Amino acid sequence: MNKAPKTAISPTREENYPEWYQQVIKAADLAEISPVRGCMVIKPWGWGLWENTQRILDKMFKDTGHENAYFPLFIPKSFLEKEAEHVEGFAKECAIVTHHRLEQGPDGKLHPAGPLEEPLIVRPTSETIIGAMFAKWIQSYRDLPLKINQWANVVRWEMRPRIFLRTAEFLWQEGHTAHATAEEAWQETRMMLDVYAEFAENTMAIPVIKGEKTAGERFPGADATLTIEAMMQDRKALQAGTSHFLGQNFSRAQEIKFQDQNGTESFAFTTSWGMSTRMIGALIMAHSDDDGLVLPPRIAPKQIVILPIYRSDEEKSQVIAHCENLKRDLERIVYHGRPLEVILDARDMRGGEKKWLYVKKGVPIRLEIGPRDIQNDAVFVGRRDQDKSSNMPRGEFIARAGALLDEIQAHLFERAQAFRDEHTRVIDNLDEFKQFFTPKNSDAPEIHGGFAHCHFVDTPEMDDILKELKVTPRCIPLANEPVDGKCIFTGRKTVTRAIFAKSY
Amino acid sequence: MNKAPKTAISPTREENYPEWYQQVIKAADLAEISPVRGCMVIKPWGWGLWENTQRILDKMFKDTGHENAYFPLFIPKSFLEKEAEHVEGFAKECAIVTHHRLEQGPDGKLHPAGPLEEPLIVRPTSETIIGAMFAKWIQSYRDLPLKINQWANVVRWEMRPRIFLRTAEFLWQEGHTAHATAEEAWQETRMMLDVYAEFAENTMAIPVIKGEKTAGERFPGADATLTIEAMMQDRKALQAGTSHFLGQNFSRAQEIKFQDQNGTESFAFTTSWGMSTRMIGALIMAHSDDDGLVLPPRIAPKQIVILPIYRSDEEKSQVIAHCENLKRDLERIVYHGRPLEVILDARDMRGGEKKWLYVKKGVPIRLEIGPRDIQNDAVFVGRRDQDKSSNMPRGEFIARAGALLDEIQAHLFERAQAFRDEHTRVIDNLDEFKQFFTPKNSDAPEIHGGFAHCHFVDTPEMDDILKELKVTPRCIPLANEPVDGKCIFTGRKTVTRAIFAKSY
Repeated sequence: MNKAPKTAISPTREENYPEWYQQVIKAADLAEISPVRGCMVIKPWGWGLWENTQRILDKMFKDTGHENAYFPLFIPKSFLEKEAEHVEGFAKECAIVTHHRLEQGPDGKLHPAGPLEEPLIVRPTSETIIGAMFAKWIQSYRDLPLKINQWANVVRWEMRPRIFLRTAEFLWQEGHTAHATAEEAWQETRMMLDVYAEFAENTMAIPVIKGEKTAGERFPGADATLTIEAMMQDRKALQAGTSHFLGQNFSRAQEIKFQDQNGTESFAFTTSWGMSTRMIGALIMAHSDDDGLVLPPRIAPKQIVILPIYRSDEEKSQVIAHCENLKRDLERIVYHGRPLEVILDARDMRGGEKKWLYVKKGVPIRLEIGPRDIQNDAVFVGRRDQDKSSNMPRGEFIARAGALLDEIQAHLFERAQAFRDEHTRVIDNLDEFKQFFTPKNSDAPEIHGGFAHCHFVDTPEMDDILKELKVTPRCIPLANEPVDGKCIFTGRKTVTRAIFAKSY
Repeated sequence: MNKAPKTAISPTREENYPEWYQQVIKAADLAEISPVRGCMVIKPWGWGLWENTQRILDKMFKDTGHENAYFPLFIPKSFLEKEAEHVEGFAKECAIVTHHRLEQGPDGKLHPAGPLEEPLIVRPTSETIIGAMFAKWIQSYRDLPLKINQWANVVRWEMRPRIFLRTAEFLWQEGHTAHATAEEAWQETRMMLDVYAEFAENTMAIPVIKGEKTAGERFPGADATLTIEAMMQDRKALQAGTSHFLGQNFSRAQEIKFQDQNGTESFAFTTSWGMSTRMIGALIMAHSDDDGLVLPPRIAPKQIVILPIYRSDEEKSQVIAHCENLKRDLERIVYHGRPLEVILDARDMRGGEKKWLYVKKGVPIRLEIGPRDIQNDAVFVGRRDQDKSSNMPRGEFIARAGALLDEIQAHLFERAQAFRDEHTRVIDNLDEFKQFFTPKNSDAPEIHGGFAHCHFVDTPEMDDILKELKVTPRCIPLANEPVDGKCIFTGRKTVTRAIFAKSY
């Protein structure tokens, strides 16, 4: 076997966190920047993560009473303008279609032609077009609740794109529901936040805090925005999913009305909620290390890779036959409702090189099998989540594979949670707050701070201080009880504490 | 029970075929035209058909060695222009993004602002952007074959949209592969045509003819286009899927080059192939009748609907409890690898009205259960594919449900095949050809003609005659052996026969 390089990823997290992130993506072959400004290409290994995300979330949506549908990619400008705050929120980042054909000009070149009467916006989100359909579909209380989800691509023009985290085009799901009462719409908003939190924690092994956004951080047009916030390894916060209570704002703007049991006409209460390919960015930054990607087994496209080790052609055919058998046996194991996904990489390649390929791709378990292992009826087991490998009897490994994967899944969650706890503080005075968010000399330049729980009153003074520190209020945790205290920015009395952090 | 209306869909196929098609879609609640020009909204029942299409095709693609990836929605104009025939083919139907934000003008209104240096085309198909990535990814023969599929939305500006058949935005999959040799690329092109044919026939119960397009009907930029052609109930042909052998046209235009074993640099051979939401239009028109949608069980979102029949509240609770049990039992049945999908519709609604709802939605089997059926331990079984219903012992129905569904699936295929055979002719002279494609007085105005197998030589004379008759060559069947004959348009000798038909 080759000697392992010191770390597979250069730079390390400590050396240059943003660049480490890019290099992990490259080394795992997840995605790359395309020649189209701000747009990414998601490669098969990255797509495998999104495919699993879709499959698992989709089932959760169906289990909570939602149906899928599909709405147009384009939104007429006039639709977007119906809700004033909404259009203001998205006007600066709209891709706009203005023509519908290419025509040869006098210069012999092709130019946009066939100007549209009304420009079309490539959807940045679909409240306005889906709302227009809801207005048509909903007449009576009998048509409510209406609970729809859409899997789609959306476009928000980004000046500083970063793969998965911030791209001009991204993929997501957007749920849109309409209800007869505010109470029911609130319940829906809360329920979908729980669905997101469960997915983040159980499938992606990312601990999250459920909370409500402060007024300044709300979705444009919402009465309230709920969020799940996760801590990345540079201690910044990442908003991993949001669920919006839209009140009657969109239903008034779009005339989503219904007759109740008494024949009275009312505006419906609506919600919307979304999770996107950004979540893959969160996954990468929550677990990966200086050797590359680390994947929780439940989201990994493949849970196990088998690497045959041999020196001669004779050994090769014997070892590969043995590995094929092992693969078949493992694929019979049902892991969280699906057969285990196993790769057997039988390519001629140096053993060390091949092993590092799968380390960098984050496959949870590597099995190395050579002639001696066959003789001993054993497997050599390497875990991606720890620098630990061991020999195990073949039968024992097969019997324990599912449990071992669950152990890895749990370990990743616990590790991320311990990291978050370690970098979370209750802070009651401004000096400490400022110090918390100022890089120390001893720190890696990009890694400092964390989650600060502080009493606050939302004022311009607070905004000024936060702007200077590049810190934002992430959320007011739903679990918080009112506690007497003073706003750390203004000294005013308040019972409300929020989490403050630098963020993505 | 209410008396059934004469037919649930008005007009009937005979009365007005195109309008019948729209009404079937409406009655089954599959989709509707959106307020966005040329774009459709796919509603949950229609989305269920697409979801099954995706699931089944996706597995077939993976089983034939393809991986999924995702590429940008936008294509820079210069990319599209690289292949001359290609851009010419799509220039007239491009949605063009020219600006990236909205800004308030002097009139106080929002206007497109931030003009792009280079206009972006919303992808009408992705050969050029995927080719640009392939050029980057492929260096050596070891990188080949590269076999990628993408699930995506595409836009082709349509002047006369029709739901599913022809919409400005539609959903599809597009496969793109690169190979070291022409032979291997041809094999891929052929294999994917077989995959499409298998899907159309086995899952959608639509018999298809595999063939090659004539030069005038090829994909812009392809050396050869293979197609599967299906006959609709108005006897028109519908192209249900295409697989293109692109030769080296795109690899030359985009510099997709590789070094072979000897270090010589060559251009790769590429293919592309696609199937779209248009297939749902084919599904509707192949099987539906004057009572609405008819669905083959393997593509149906739900295979069985249970309709409880009761007169009093007491009966209601008893009947519904019984139906819930039955539903659970049926859902334990595995049908083609998945649990049966069963609806229990327990809403208070008149029995006849409810029954017709599911007739119009095309659910393959309806079970009606009332107190007497419970007493007799029986179910009342209605089949959507025939005007036939019967009482069956409950246990026997459960034991036979899968077989019964397969019988329905087979019956729909055979019925469609018999219809196609009935309206297929070998025609050896032009008069007969003209007569075949001329509506008779006795016919319904929209329903005439069929598939005409004719010897032909591709000439301008032929084109003129075809144009006048509004007939097109659909394909030269792959199964054809060369047979001596004369072109029916020019009298020239030829051994080649094509299928001619009116078409969608």
